[in-house]
Amino acid sequence: MWAALAAVGRDPDTGGYRRGGWTPTEREATAWFTDQCTRRNLTLESDGIGNLVAWWSPRGEPARHAELGIPGAPSSTGTRDSATAAGRRGTGLGAGDAAASPASPGSAATPAGGPASRPGIVTGSHLDSVIDGGAFDGPLGVVSALAAVDLLRAEGFEPSVPIGVGAFVEEEGSRFGMPCLGSRVAAGVLPAERALALTDRQGVSLAAALEAAGTDPAGVGPSPLLAKMGTFVELHVEQGRGLTAPVGVASSIWPHGRYRFTFGGEANHAGTTLMEDRHDPMLTYAMTALAANKQARLTGARATFGRVSVEPNGTNAVPLQVTAWLDARAADEAALESLLAAITRQAAERAERDGTTLDVVPESVSPSVDFPAGLRDRLVDVLDGAPVLPTGAGHDAGVFSAAGVPTAMLFVRNPTGISHSPAEFAEPDDCLAGVDALAAVLRDLAK
Amino acid sequence: MWAALAAVGRDPDTGGYRRGGWTPTEREATAWFTDQCTRRNLTLESDGIGNLVAWWSPRGEPARHAELGIPGAPSSTGTRDSATAAGRRGTGLGAGDAAASPASPGSAATPAGGPASRPGIVTGSHLDSVIDGGAFDGPLGVVSALAAVDLLRAEGFEPSVPIGVGAFVEEEGSRFGMPCLGSRVAAGVLPAERALALTDRQGVSLAAALEAAGTDPAGVGPSPLLAKMGTFVELHVEQGRGLTAPVGVASSIWPHGRYRFTFGGEANHAGTTLMEDRHDPMLTYAMTALAANKQARLTGARATFGRVSVEPNGTNAVPLQVTAWLDARAADEAALESLLAAITRQAAERAERDGTTLDVVPESVSPSVDFPAGLRDRLVDVLDGAPVLPTGAGHDAGVFSAAGVPTAMLFVRNPTGISHSPAEFAEPDDCLAGVDALAAVLRDLAK
Repeated sequence: MWAALAAVGRDPDTGGYRRGGWTPTEREATAWFTDQCTRRNLTLESDGIGNLVAWWSPRGEPARHAELGIPGAPSSTGTRDSATAAGRRGTGLGAGDAAASPASPGSAATPAGGPASRPGIVTGSHLDSVIDGGAFDGPLGVVSALAAVDLLRAEGFEPSVPIGVGAFVEEEGSRFGMPCLGSRVAAGVLPAERALALTDRQGVSLAAALEAAGTDPAGVGPSPLLAKMGTFVELHVEQGRGLTAPVGVASSIWPHGRYRFTFGGEANHAGTTLMEDRHDPMLTYAMTALAANKQARLTGARATFGRVSVEPNGTNAVPLQVTAWLDARAADEAALESLLAAITRQAAERAERDGTTLDVVPESVSPSVDFPAGLRDRLVDVLDGAPVLPTGAGHDAGVFSAAGVPTAMLFVRNPTGISHSPAEFAEPDDCLAGVDALAAVLRDLAK
Repeated sequence: MWAALAAVGRDPDTGGYRRGGWTPTEREATAWFTDQCTRRNLTLESDGIGNLVAWWSPRGEPARHAELGIPGAPSSTGTRDSATAAGRRGTGLGAGDAAASPASPGSAATPAGGPASRPGIVTGSHLDSVIDGGAFDGPLGVVSALAAVDLLRAEGFEPSVPIGVGAFVEEEGSRFGMPCLGSRVAAGVLPAERALALTDRQGVSLAAALEAAGTDPAGVGPSPLLAKMGTFVELHVEQGRGLTAPVGVASSIWPHGRYRFTFGGEANHAGTTLMEDRHDPMLTYAMTALAANKQARLTGARATFGRVSVEPNGTNAVPLQVTAWLDARAADEAALESLLAAITRQAAERAERDGTTLDVVPESVSPSVDFPAGLRDRLVDVLDGAPVLPTGAGHDAGVFSAAGVPTAMLFVRNPTGISHSPAEFAEPDDCLAGVDALAAVLRDLAK
């Protein structure tokens, strides 16, 4: 599975992955996933925005082996035929569920709502990537989920509740700028109209991207899948060097803010304007970037300026304006607020000296997520005392947890701590230990 | 004239000018210029790349009132007709000149080489602008030249040598990245094949842009106009606050370098990577930008980072690479070299601390230009002891001077020192004083 997926969306020049949501490469990865689910006789469900869960239902549950066509993902004629057959066979879908379904007339989507008749255990992650991201962030959780199902089936395990393998769309937000887009919409945290109006860097709206992928935007909204998630467990590669054992369990996700800093100055001639006469916003920005780094170091937090836009961006012109985005994270909300306040204060002081202006706008702020202690401790027990650690990275697991789904996360060791980079890596033995751990957790939760 | 030209290429949102070489707005300004020359019965000449000189020839000189069609610039049918008539009238063009002409078969261009039969006094400047530039940088010199001719004619002055009014293309280099493009090609400093291969930000080559404007790229090369420039005088708005009198005379142009700094680091996750584990090229860049500013302040030089490009430029990623362009200028070449060395040393020291890489490539370095002292002193005498000052800005005058044309510059006071900005400004009275001064200089040089 790993070898097949590794080739999809990998840029030959950088070696990094480019799987933005609803791009051809991301669709190819999704098609690979639906094909894998079909081969395993898992029952695929798609919600309005395209989140997927493939169900392994207990013996005797209805429509256990139905196969449904997935809109927007290339699929064989055979799959589509059996999807129609599945529709005819009936799925145990209640009248109330049908009314709540977001599928719209003319849509080829088979709405979520059918196969899993009572809340199950969902595990999985995402298939999209940041720009030039690594192979593990996301796909490791999806592939491990499929591998864990294989392992459990091979040993003859019979789940007492449905087990679902999930792939959630645009988790990185690399195309539409909104991390966890699919899970936020599914959980109802992000209203459909706001989501559909998001645009990518080419100005294409999510609504237009969905239409281009064959998905009716009218179906976007809170997802019936959530009601079926009795528990959610996401396995993910660790993204720092905080884990020294092969596998660990998450305690929490740090709160996380994205803030747009706009530094305004006075455009001027780079050759003739005395240094003393300038109001150069690049200097205010440069000082702020250094201050953010220093402040995060001092407090054990994270602060990054990774995205910058300069106007007019000419070699021989003192800039008129520099816009830069701060990504800030800290162990708790108070620490995040004081980190932002310290950076903003130092930026404002420098702006005063430079005669420039400063404007700070929060673009998104996610509160911290503390995964439920009971579930976490149960995983630690199953895994013979695996280490517990927080993470600074956002995940769909955080969104689902905040939405009230009992949620846990497993981390697989990252020897270098590098992530969001082509150099992202995990040892094959650690990945296999992750599959074993996930299988053990599913065996326990679905027993 | 000022009111007519002020509307051409002005962006309604920023109030700045966008007249990149061979863009529709720059072509419109050029058409305005050719129309003004035609109305004054000046004899227009164009060289292969499209530099224009409109001649006022002494009585008895051949073809004094010929009017020639200008390729690429919209012109009335009447103008084209009289161009043909002028061609029939003959221009005193010698056989040797004709052979040296860069005009190619099929080109509608009337080559330089004809009307001015002996070296004259050329004055003028440029009509293109930086991105979102001001109204004065360039156009003030062109409009003042036409106004000075009007003044001299109104008083019945008869030049003893031809007086030419010039407009030179792409002086700012805002489209093709090469400042003084027209004058460099005309002077033979920039080979035609290198010039034609330059591309704009959309990837359009100069060759393609010329063809789109109706100019045959085969004609690009050293210009016959240069042999006709016995003297060149460029009037320009001052671009700093160095001039307190209405009009001054240039002593020199500072040497000027553009250097590309590439800072390489390690792409990583902005949320999970410990600050201590990062190799963040943004920090190295930020420190370098501050160091450049400080070093220029300490030495009375200029150093500017006005253009930056970040890879992958994602909010949640520690950058892989930051590329930034340093514009550096100093009073002499030794000072420029030591400025660059000091900035590079501090950048390298910071790169060592950050675990990042540094690569510095000079993209263009222009030596200093000392305008000839004799001509300069003559202007100062004519202008009753006008102040003499150097400039940090590059000009076509610098290129022509380096090519051996006796050259001088006049500056008109800039009360704020702002340039390369929509806020660029000069008082109308100072502009009129500039016209008077230029007329006095022409009266003296062409007497």
